[in-house]
Amino acid sequence: MNAKKKEKHILSMLVDNQPGVLSRIAGLFTGRGFNIESLCVSQTLDPRVSRVTLVTLGDMAILEQIKKQLNKLINIIKVSDFTDTAFVQRDLILVKVRARAENRAEILRIVDIFRGKIVDVGETCYSVEVTGDESKITAFLNLLTPIGIKEIARTGAIALAREKQKNQ
Amino acid sequence: MNAKKKEKHILSMLVDNQPGVLSRIAGLFTGRGFNIESLCVSQTLDPRVSRVTLVTLGDMAILEQIKKQLNKLINIIKVSDFTDTAFVQRDLILVKVRARAENRAEILRIVDIFRGKIVDVGETCYSVEVTGDESKITAFLNLLTPIGIKEIARTGAIALAREKQKNQ
Repeated sequence: MNAKKKEKHILSMLVDNQPGVLSRIAGLFTGRGFNIESLCVSQTLDPRVSRVTLVTLGDMAILEQIKKQLNKLINIIKVSDFTDTAFVQRDLILVKVRARAENRAEILRIVDIFRGKIVDVGETCYSVEVTGDESKITAFLNLLTPIGIKEIARTGAIALAREKQKNQ
Repeated sequence: MNAKKKEKHILSMLVDNQPGVLSRIAGLFTGRGFNIESLCVSQTLDPRVSRVTLVTLGDMAILEQIKKQLNKLINIIKVSDFTDTAFVQRDLILVKVRARAENRAEILRIVDIFRGKIVDVGETCYSVEVTGDESKITAFLNLLTPIGIKEIARTGAIALAREKQKNQ
């Protein structure tokens, strides 16, 4: 493996639900010049524990160092790296798109093809919701761009490891 | 308005896509003892700009101070507070649930009612995806809990302002 090659990595961490943890995690990445592409922090079934899912692009060797340092932080319970694992990845996007009389049917068709949902209808705009991996969301945005995107809000990726099959 | 009452707030910020911004934002909340309930950082249509959506529970008066300080940070382009606005809020959750022969049909029914999707099928587990506001996701989890939840990953909320209607 070429340690110098910049790759996309998804890290999933279970952390104590306490103020300060996020700022320490973000600081570790900043300190090594790693930009965080996307990050989700949310509750788990245990109210004392939060899950942080982080997508970053960078050198594998430096990422290994960051993972070691993350594991040393007392408020971090577990760090999972999905790099060499089979996983399901999902991202949610809300898009506000200009809806003129002549392109409303086209918007509905695109939303239908992507198994999305219309979540708000205004006089000039539709707001739509779509989930998928990165390539699906990029394709969806590419189709809506010529129609006119007013605004987007996006969650960033979350992931779960796929179940191992017995026969594999 | 009772300034001392702890309320849930959704802040949406457009920020420069640069290392260090997230750690400064998180630090501002930590410094005032505000816990961040959930947070999403993701790209926008402009690669130089990221959007941070943050859900926090706290005193309105202190939040006003935090907003003023956020507005002073040079890497923060715009702060929107959805507190007094009509908005659409969405959260995405992936749930890995135990799938035994006797409850598979029940899982499929629940997923169907919540307009969710099965995203992975293993020998002992199904992974399912559902989007919605907080109450919908809580209801979904409550129904799956007796069946047996193995793991969850959740994005945290994102939001878009609703379109104003001319007649309102």
